[in-house]
Amino acid sequence: MLNQSTALAPTDLDRMFHALADPARRAMMERLAQGPAPVSELARPLPMSLPSVMQHLGVLEAAGLVRSEKTGRVRTCAIVPGTLSQAEQWINARRTEWERRLDRLGQYLDTLGVDPKSDP
Amino acid sequence: MLNQSTALAPTDLDRMFHALADPARRAMMERLAQGPAPVSELARPLPMSLPSVMQHLGVLEAAGLVRSEKTGRVRTCAIVPGTLSQAEQWINARRTEWERRLDRLGQYLDTLGVDPKSDP
Repeated sequence: MLNQSTALAPTDLDRMFHALADPARRAMMERLAQGPAPVSELARPLPMSLPSVMQHLGVLEAAGLVRSEKTGRVRTCAIVPGTLSQAEQWINARRTEWERRLDRLGQYLDTLGVDPKSDP
Repeated sequence: MLNQSTALAPTDLDRMFHALADPARRAMMERLAQGPAPVSELARPLPMSLPSVMQHLGVLEAAGLVRSEKTGRVRTCAIVPGTLSQAEQWINARRTEWERRLDRLGQYLDTLGVDPKSDP
């Protein structure tokens, strides 16, 4: 049973999955998983202007995946603890539920002596 | 070190995370995690027209998350095994790497007798 209000309210998951749907933003997350870094270091391997990198950083910050802090002229970025887990948990719950269902189906077919690979 | 060509090539992950960034599409995935369903059943709880539901289904199919098959007048949808795991693995790898780094930092501070919560 779908809970319509929960399922359709705009959620943090929308922003989080949207943020991860871009290769430049995933590259920034991959770098930050190794530890905090200044924007200049995040920008170096990316084939785009610094303003574009700042825009991508804004999307990651709006999604709660990254936070940044300016000290003097250097803006340092870091992963926000816990946020990635929410996206991971949503996917894991779907995958687990679906695999459990397949297991039950397999067990049921076993009790009937049916080979699930054969045609019905 | 970022591998630029890998990090920036448009990938299946782009399509997958984009597909999961919409609450209606996540609702469809939540229903399908319980087992295959006809489009009409996926559409029932969603406050949108059938053509809109078909568009969302198209995004899920293009991402390789769902496949559908038409028998007579009924189109039945099902989750594609394995695809969700790829998105989960990407997130898990980042989270694990980041948590491991924090652990190492904590251990290093321990050897110095530094309380990480105190100001430097």
